[in-house]
Amino acid sequence: MELVCVEDFEKKAFTKLEKNALDYYRSGAGEQFTLGLNREAFKRLRLRPRFLRDVSHVDISCKILGQQLKWPVGIAPTAMQKMAHPDGEVGNARAAGKAGSIFILSTLSTTSLEDLSAGAPDTCKWFQLYIYKDRSLTEKLVRRAEKANFKALVLTVDAPIFGHRRSDVRNKFSLPSHLKLANFQGDLANGVITMGGSGINEYVASQFDASITWKDIAWLKQLTNLPIIAKGVLTAEDAVLAREFGCAGVIVSNHGARQIDTVPASIEALPEVAKAVGNDLVVMLDGGIMQGNDIFKALALGAKTVFIGRPAVYGLAYNGQSGVEQLLSVLRKDFEITMSLTGCQTLRDIQPGMVVHESFYSKL
Amino acid sequence: MELVCVEDFEKKAFTKLEKNALDYYRSGAGEQFTLGLNREAFKRLRLRPRFLRDVSHVDISCKILGQQLKWPVGIAPTAMQKMAHPDGEVGNARAAGKAGSIFILSTLSTTSLEDLSAGAPDTCKWFQLYIYKDRSLTEKLVRRAEKANFKALVLTVDAPIFGHRRSDVRNKFSLPSHLKLANFQGDLANGVITMGGSGINEYVASQFDASITWKDIAWLKQLTNLPIIAKGVLTAEDAVLAREFGCAGVIVSNHGARQIDTVPASIEALPEVAKAVGNDLVVMLDGGIMQGNDIFKALALGAKTVFIGRPAVYGLAYNGQSGVEQLLSVLRKDFEITMSLTGCQTLRDIQPGMVVHESFYSKL
Amino acid sequence: MELVCVEDFEKKAFTKLEKNALDYYRSGAGEQFTLGLNREAFKRLRLRPRFLRDVSHVDISCKILGQQLKWPVGIAPTAMQKMAHPDGEVGNARAAGKAGSIFILSTLSTTSLEDLSAGAPDTCKWFQLYIYKDRSLTEKLVRRAEKANFKALVLTVDAPIFGHRRSDVRNKFSLPSHLKLANFQGDLANGVITMGGSGINEYVASQFDASITWKDIAWLKQLTNLPIIAKGVLTAEDAVLAREFGCAGVIVSNHGARQIDTVPASIEALPEVAKAVGNDLVVMLDGGIMQGNDIFKALALGAKTVFIGRPAVYGLAYNGQSGVEQLLSVLRKDFEITMSLTGCQTLRDIQPGMVVHESFYSKL
Amino acid sequence: MELVCVEDFEKKAFTKLEKNALDYYRSGAGEQFTLGLNREAFKRLRLRPRFLRDVSHVDISCKILGQQLKWPVGIAPTAMQKMAHPDGEVGNARAAGKAGSIFILSTLSTTSLEDLSAGAPDTCKWFQLYIYKDRSLTEKLVRRAEKANFKALVLTVDAPIFGHRRSDVRNKFSLPSHLKLANFQGDLANGVITMGGSGINEYVASQFDASITWKDIAWLKQLTNLPIIAKGVLTAEDAVLAREFGCAGVIVSNHGARQIDTVPASIEALPEVAKAVGNDLVVMLDGGIMQGNDIFKALALGAKTVFIGRPAVYGLAYNGQSGVEQLLSVLRKDFEITMSLTGCQTLRDIQPGMVVHESFYSKL
Ligand SMILES: Cc1cc2nc3c(=O)[nH]c(=O)nc-3n(C[C@H](O)[C@H](O)[C@H](O)COP(=O)(O)O)c2cc1C
Ligand SMILES: Cc1cc2nc3c(=O)[nH]c(=O)nc-3n(C[C@H](O)[C@H](O)[C@H](O)COP(=O)(O)O)c2cc1C
Ligand SMILES: Cc1cc2nc3c(=O)[nH]c(=O)nc-3n(C[C@H](O)[C@H](O)[C@H](O)COP(=O)(O)O)c2cc1C
Ligand SMILES: Cc1cc2nc3c(=O)[nH]c(=O)nc-3n(C[C@H](O)[C@H](O)[C@H](O)COP(=O)(O)O)c2cc1C
Repeated sequence: MELVCVEDFEKKAFTKLEKNALDYYRSGAGEQFTLGLNREAFKRLRLRPRFLRDVSHVDISCKILGQQLKWPVGIAPTAMQKMAHPDGEVGNARAAGKAGSIFILSTLSTTSLEDLSAGAPDTCKWFQLYIYKDRSLTEKLVRRAEKANFKALVLTVDAPIFGHRRSDVRNKFSLPSHLKLANFQGDLANGVITMGGSGINEYVASQFDASITWKDIAWLKQLTNLPIIAKGVLTAEDAVLAREFGCAGVIVSNHGARQIDTVPASIEALPEVAKAVGNDLVVMLDGGIMQGNDIFKALALGAKTVFIGRPAVYGLAYNGQSGVEQLLSVLRKDFEITMSLTGCQTLRDIQPGMVVHESFYSKL
Repeated sequence: MELVCVEDFEKKAFTKLEKNALDYYRSGAGEQFTLGLNREAFKRLRLRPRFLRDVSHVDISCKILGQQLKWPVGIAPTAMQKMAHPDGEVGNARAAGKAGSIFILSTLSTTSLEDLSAGAPDTCKWFQLYIYKDRSLTEKLVRRAEKANFKALVLTVDAPIFGHRRSDVRNKFSLPSHLKLANFQGDLANGVITMGGSGINEYVASQFDASITWKDIAWLKQLTNLPIIAKGVLTAEDAVLAREFGCAGVIVSNHGARQIDTVPASIEALPEVAKAVGNDLVVMLDGGIMQGNDIFKALALGAKTVFIGRPAVYGLAYNGQSGVEQLLSVLRKDFEITMSLTGCQTLRDIQPGMVVHESFYSKL
Repeated sequence: MELVCVEDFEKKAFTKLEKNALDYYRSGAGEQFTLGLNREAFKRLRLRPRFLRDVSHVDISCKILGQQLKWPVGIAPTAMQKMAHPDGEVGNARAAGKAGSIFILSTLSTTSLEDLSAGAPDTCKWFQLYIYKDRSLTEKLVRRAEKANFKALVLTVDAPIFGHRRSDVRNKFSLPSHLKLANFQGDLANGVITMGGSGINEYVASQFDASITWKDIAWLKQLTNLPIIAKGVLTAEDAVLAREFGCAGVIVSNHGARQIDTVPASIEALPEVAKAVGNDLVVMLDGGIMQGNDIFKALALGAKTVFIGRPAVYGLAYNGQSGVEQLLSVLRKDFEITMSLTGCQTLRDIQPGMVVHESFYSKL
Repeated sequence: MELVCVEDFEKKAFTKLEKNALDYYRSGAGEQFTLGLNREAFKRLRLRPRFLRDVSHVDISCKILGQQLKWPVGIAPTAMQKMAHPDGEVGNARAAGKAGSIFILSTLSTTSLEDLSAGAPDTCKWFQLYIYKDRSLTEKLVRRAEKANFKALVLTVDAPIFGHRRSDVRNKFSLPSHLKLANFQGDLANGVITMGGSGINEYVASQFDASITWKDIAWLKQLTNLPIIAKGVLTAEDAVLAREFGCAGVIVSNHGARQIDTVPASIEALPEVAKAVGNDLVVMLDGGIMQGNDIFKALALGAKTVFIGRPAVYGLAYNGQSGVEQLLSVLRKDFEITMSLTGCQTLRDIQPGMVVHESFYSKL
């Protein structure tokens, strides 16, 4: 059967992954209310399409932080991708490159910065940073990212500790022993081993620095000239701080609903962020993107590009690099259709009034 | 068992149609959110009926674009009706005629303009137009429509390409080989053949002109004196353009939720259109009409007539022309009951305040 | 198993009634949206209870149109009660009398006005009136009601014809042949016989006068001194007309959601009616009452008393007169508990602010 | 399987308790609408988390009425805990003590004030008071509470009688004969015996004084110097009276949805109470607390501490004292995560703007 939408890839992946990994990938925090909301909230937004506009040629290319991209969909950082498929991060990044998308490598990857760069030299790569208690570790990661040709640092701000994902605790999640956190050596590389609960949470609790504040952005900026992007912002207040402390952009995100339940869907939080800083910073979004019209809505509400997390992992699980390629092509096609059928030739034609909340239609 | 409501016809049709055709008829775009919403949105509207008015004689006749009709329900253009039943477009149109309704023939019909006209001479007929890249084709269609006694041209504005209907791609939909697009010759007549995906989408992508704009209405108007109706308008902005470019009317429609998902239900979009142009243009609606009270609501919110798409196809599938006759009679009966039980003797008695959004009742 | 709530009686009745009768009793019009809403809408209202008020003695007696009653719950007119149980209208009325409630006899009863009066002499009785094309018939009914000691005339305004209840058409509903419309003779008594569809609808269509208007209230008033109550009012506009034409009261009702679907729940329509005429007319309500807190809400929003339709029929079906007695006692108990637990000693203590729409709680 | 959330304890308890007891514990009043709403309403509130704040050390200690506590979660009074497990109230109170929580003993406990105090000397204990018709009984309870080192009196205001819990009536609930209401002697101790319906309701109806009013607070205050807390307040109006009559605090509560159905969820009622008296009285809340983010929301909306009722009973049923310990530790952990992931170091950092109603996100 042909795979015609992201859900089809998801279904395939569910049959391929073993429980430990599958639950790790799909889980959200707590009761998983926000996990569902990340999708649901898109359905509460309506498109107001415009017709009889020339859409014989649709151009969805864009420029993000000086980088020319084929379309406004990149791949969000997700940890430990070799659990999904041996192609792992390299497969994912290559597929992204072919599609003209950004790939963001997680600190907690099963492929090192250097191997990723060697494996996917033509992809536009960003590096996602977690700050370790041992600051010299972080400093080294930054230096390596610079050398390995990564174009931006994505500082994840929403994870001083990891959220409570019930299945991971029940499964006593640990990284299969043949895999490593490839950016590290020794204990740090092999540390995602359960000490009774979720191995990844225990690792994070022991290693990450939960005391970091906005001032640490200053510290990072004095280390590097790479643009710094704050990932995980959900409020206008934090977006304003990101601007104040010199971030180049923000990713509106709730970490795939994995950190703390009942936060807003990312698409719910986007408008206040875009209103607050959209003129000054590059506002981006991830969370729940599965269709062309999701992408359109995010752009209409102020995002310059969006990222997908789980969908890419599912493409990978389904069929390695070529699974991700196929998935991106399905999604790209769907977005182009959305552009045509809303009357938009280029991304600049996506105007705010083209997306409204459903409550718009309660007034007769 | 007697068929007492449109759903009953639907159920019957579902047992009669084979998968390729059934899926083609019933599908909506994407996740089919708007498909459900087209019905759901009617339920969010409440009738405020008035009593002790003389309803011993209810008159639901109306005049649309100078044409006297027995009631304000016509048949929307739907492609390839012979897939549903050998009676095809002629059966459908004859039933419409008997009921005193408008029948709109699709460009993509399995009966030619001329055969339709010959088969259903007494029916008030409109012709639905798609504009082909080869403009002379369109020009010829217009000429033939004039000759074959069609009374209006319905330009479908929401389909520069066709929407992503998942089942059609999965089924690799194609028109059964014994049927043709009867308004055309050669490849154009036999072109709904899959090239890997949905055959109809591939046909449309290769043939329809996606570059048309409101200015092409001017081009059409210079070709013909037939009134031009823009079908597929979902915003006040586009309705205003329709007026500006000389359309005689608009059909508020989301193409049966088949083009792009998460657009508003047609009944949601109706009020803004009616407010913007209702005094100047004939505002009409299709999408989700299945009951007498749906018709009533559309009229109360500004439509002068409504159209049904799938229901007529289901009547046809159930029992050819006589299935459609039966369906129209069930629907007409139900609308007459609605008139009586809301206290309306004629369509002029349907006042805006008689239909309110459910939120009207949240204020105590 | 003890029957502890109205739902329990409903379940029992469902096992006792044969399909023709059961469907007749339980059906609503169309898709039965409003049927569900009649219950649902109560759940969208919240009680704001007050505490530490002396509720050692709760007094729920009331005076309606000069009549002293033990509590503000009466029995709505429902047709053909002997289908439910041989005790029929007399059993129902006697149970009402014991409970100190009003009983309203339907025009379409299987017990005559005279037999009802003889069988339930101590019950406060009102007579529900339909107006026949043959006005002398109606006139006779009024005279008989006066003689048989009925205290008010309840003119049902929402039924110029009967609504489309799908099951009745499917079942080709007819009154079992051993039963009669006991207020009539000959054809009129035996006329609920199917002529292809729902026998009751066909009867109504042929006999009731669909041309009546508010002016006919004047005609009625000149026939009799009995107070006239308009049953079926759903808008402030009609309530104002009821006042203008001299009605003593109105029953806000959608006829148990049996006439036209997607009208408001009665409890939704109540506030606008109470605001418009509550100071001048006795405002009452029926529709969906099944619990103590439903009664409380109706009273808080302006009703002086409420009526139950189906619940009483179900009590009757379950166990004749004593089934109704038991049901009324369960409901009374539940209402007394509601009074105690909201801090109300008498009906006068039920203040508007004690019932709010759920949206009250969306503002933090 | 590890128990990772309160629902897990609930499930375990459901397999351990026999029907009479299980139904008694879990039931709510009427249709149990508010029972569900107590949970649902939390989901309609969104967290607005703030990031890059130092959360390396989170301090959730608090001071309530002069008492230093380890965290703002106590145990609500629930009757007859020995039905759940032989450890009963003592086990529950000890677990509370270990966790640094308040334990509130019910008047209707299966352990006497004195035994509780002896069994859990180090726990901060409050005594929940019902006022009996025989006032000297109440007076004695107050004296005993003072002597047994209870630190506050919690006057339950929402229970002049008990609500209609359908299962208890169906089950003819009675206290197993080997158990007693341990604060009483003779009939009063053995009185929870069915007289046809729910034994506990019958007991309450015969013994409790339903005539008490706010003035009886004055009577209580003249008996004792213990602070008096009104439990069960659901409106600003009653909160203002609590202040006027000298209460030290109020617990916003609907008695676990057991008294009267369709009252607001406690979390819905909290804001109006906090706004009215939050500066003057200690505002607290119980009802539906099952997760860290529930606690956070209650605190953000004005509560100084919250209490859990059923969850503690389920911990007890699962494994006695140690079951409750385990449950409290799961809940504490979850709350600490919430604090970290919303950027709050201490309870003072929980600001009102961090919790909003979902409607906050309907405005684009
Ligand atoms: C399995 C998994 C692992 C993730 N690992 C990381 C990570 O290492 N660093 C990070 O910043 N975000 C991580 N995220 C969050 C993603 O970057 C992204 O915010 C989220 O997946 C987007 O939502 P979506 O999955 O609905 O597309 C992870 C998400 C998932 C599902
Ligand atoms: C099977 C099918 C084929 C259709 N073909 C056409 C078409 O050829 N041209 C057109 O303008 N609209 C077409 N439509 C849209 C209908 O004209 C109409 O807008 C829609 O069906 C109304 O919604 P309803 O099906 O809920 O009544 C089609 C719809 C369906 C369901
Ligand atoms: C089986 C049935 C028969 C009814 N017959 C009559 C009738 O003869 N006259 C009338 O005015 N209303 C009639 N009604 C409407 C009731 O008087 C009342 O408005 C309705 O039942 C109230 O709603 P409830 O059933 O939810 O309590 C009937 C309702 C039912 C369910
Ligand atoms: C089984 C049970 C017994 C209760 N007994 C009492 C009681 O004796 N006195 C009292 O004030 N509240 C009593 N309550 C109410 C609780 O104190 C508290 O308000 C409620 O349980 C909080 O809701 P929760 O169960 O959702 O946490 C009882 C609640 C339950 C579930």
